[in-house]
Amino acid sequence: MTHHDLALIGFGGVNRALAEIIRDRGDDLAADLGFGLRVVAITDLRLGSLMQSDGIDLGAVLSMTGLDTFAGMPGGDAEPRNEYVIRHTTADVVVEATFTNPVDGEPAISHVRAALESGKSVTTTNKGPVALAGTALNRLAAENGVRFEYEGSVMSGTPVLRLAQQTLRGLRITRVQGILNGTSNFVLGQMESGRSLEDAVAEAQALGYAEADPTADIEGSDVQLKVVILANELLGADITTADVSRVGISGITATDVIAAAAAGEHWKLIGTVDRDEAGAVTASVQPLSLAADHPLAGISGATNAIAFTTDLLGAITMSGPGAGRLETAYALLSDIIAIDAHQASLAGALR
Amino acid sequence: MTHHDLALIGFGGVNRALAEIIRDRGDDLAADLGFGLRVVAITDLRLGSLMQSDGIDLGAVLSMTGLDTFAGMPGGDAEPRNEYVIRHTTADVVVEATFTNPVDGEPAISHVRAALESGKSVTTTNKGPVALAGTALNRLAAENGVRFEYEGSVMSGTPVLRLAQQTLRGLRITRVQGILNGTSNFVLGQMESGRSLEDAVAEAQALGYAEADPTADIEGSDVQLKVVILANELLGADITTADVSRVGISGITATDVIAAAAAGEHWKLIGTVDRDEAGAVTASVQPLSLAADHPLAGISGATNAIAFTTDLLGAITMSGPGAGRLETAYALLSDIIAIDAHQASLAGALR
Repeated sequence: MTHHDLALIGFGGVNRALAEIIRDRGDDLAADLGFGLRVVAITDLRLGSLMQSDGIDLGAVLSMTGLDTFAGMPGGDAEPRNEYVIRHTTADVVVEATFTNPVDGEPAISHVRAALESGKSVTTTNKGPVALAGTALNRLAAENGVRFEYEGSVMSGTPVLRLAQQTLRGLRITRVQGILNGTSNFVLGQMESGRSLEDAVAEAQALGYAEADPTADIEGSDVQLKVVILANELLGADITTADVSRVGISGITATDVIAAAAAGEHWKLIGTVDRDEAGAVTASVQPLSLAADHPLAGISGATNAIAFTTDLLGAITMSGPGAGRLETAYALLSDIIAIDAHQASLAGALR
Repeated sequence: MTHHDLALIGFGGVNRALAEIIRDRGDDLAADLGFGLRVVAITDLRLGSLMQSDGIDLGAVLSMTGLDTFAGMPGGDAEPRNEYVIRHTTADVVVEATFTNPVDGEPAISHVRAALESGKSVTTTNKGPVALAGTALNRLAAENGVRFEYEGSVMSGTPVLRLAQQTLRGLRITRVQGILNGTSNFVLGQMESGRSLEDAVAEAQALGYAEADPTADIEGSDVQLKVVILANELLGADITTADVSRVGISGITATDVIAAAAAGEHWKLIGTVDRDEAGAVTASVQPLSLAADHPLAGISGATNAIAFTTDLLGAITMSGPGAGRLETAYALLSDIIAIDAHQASLAGALR
């Protein structure tokens, strides 16, 4: 059976969850998918770096505690050395899950570029590289005969990008509308029960939905990056965040929300991308009061959803998680499955 | 550019819609998909049969009116001769869209078998062959090196089967729950507004959702067939309709529905398939009163939806149309796209 060798860049919650999935059900997955998975490199800000081309013992690494680092282990180093590891690992797939810097996308963009330049496919859960440099990185991947995959950049493991690009092939998508931020949707739902915005945000923080600084969730800049990705990936645009008008939910009051609910409507923070007949794309983030029969009106709690408007099917809506360790790790797994399928088709064509 | 030659078996609303799509946007589709589409055979109860291996003029055929038949046209005959055409057509894909007989699946099963035996791939929108003979027909397709595709057998063009089998690969699906009949969902929605079941059914008939005899919609036997397909295709079962317990909505009163709505719940006719840890599958059709945060509670009107319960992602829900000419014709197109991808991968592997 073929297998893929992975380099995990960043060993926080998401890549740890992926390592746990491989440790716990790698054999079942191999039987299901037709290929095995082996981790041959890990880098981490705190742990340092580890390169073992015959496969890292994931059980041992996942049980490291306290002040342990990779230093002193065979192939280990106290420094993460991300770019060195990315260029020199024997992995064929680099799994990029460092933190997202929404302003310049670094260091994730450099990680992705280094991997693609050295002939490795990349999967990332990072919005930054996709929203800020997606076109250039896709071109670089094509030039090097490898893949750049990023299902987790929008709605974590809920496969909206692959749904639109593969499962809905042959349809013309003219509009994409989404609830793309679980925190703000949870907060608006709490406000329907009479809470103030502040109380609802505090509750979201207590439940682990919202960051200590919830500004990106509440003011719509998180959604703005995702709208850029949807516009460029699914509607053929080439826009940046500056092209996406943005209004957050901080101007919405509990009174607004309750009045709407009494009329059967629900306030939602909605990202929208439209393409007109001539191919011009417009994009926005704004709170909207949706009538009960709108496909996104019933999406409650921290759930995310996207509604596609299409020529032959009308509205097609997919809802699912928009965050979470395991959920986002599945996005990486689904990207690896796509990379495997692409390599298999190339191998077939070249045989 | 490669192309596929199609034989359209049955020339009612759905296959006519497919012919219109090919006539009106065949060139755009070819540019998008990388292959062209040509119709080389059509059979129809009223029109007879037509076989033209260099391609039928779809504009001419679609404008035939009144008492016109194919008799007298080159390659034409007054009789439909379905099986003869299926076996002798130069088409590589047979598009089966005759009417569904839910008891024995005929004549659709014989059509599918004839096509597969003569080395042609098949796409069908017919529930009958899939629910009643899916396992045998899939085996026959594999033996003949061709494909049997039937996305339209559940939720018309909304691609729930392909979503589960391809886009969600790597997940374990433990439960599938769906609103799989638009008529009954529309009727229950009308009853929330205070209408009686009888009035709501009459309204559904006036709007073209319900048949003159709405029994299969109201009593759940339409959903029962779809549940068999979901159980066998997505959860690895091998069950028949006799294994699916069934209760329709005729026992639900407007009082029940209104009382539930006052408590924030919604009655829905739900098809459910569960797989337990040991792999045993149970399946049912029954009306359920769903809490507002259930992923299917907000599906209104004639819209259909399926919620998948998965190990890594939790609930993933897709909603969309469950019927309609164009919508069902897209199911055929999406099947043809899948057949093309399969043939391309085989060609690559054999090269």
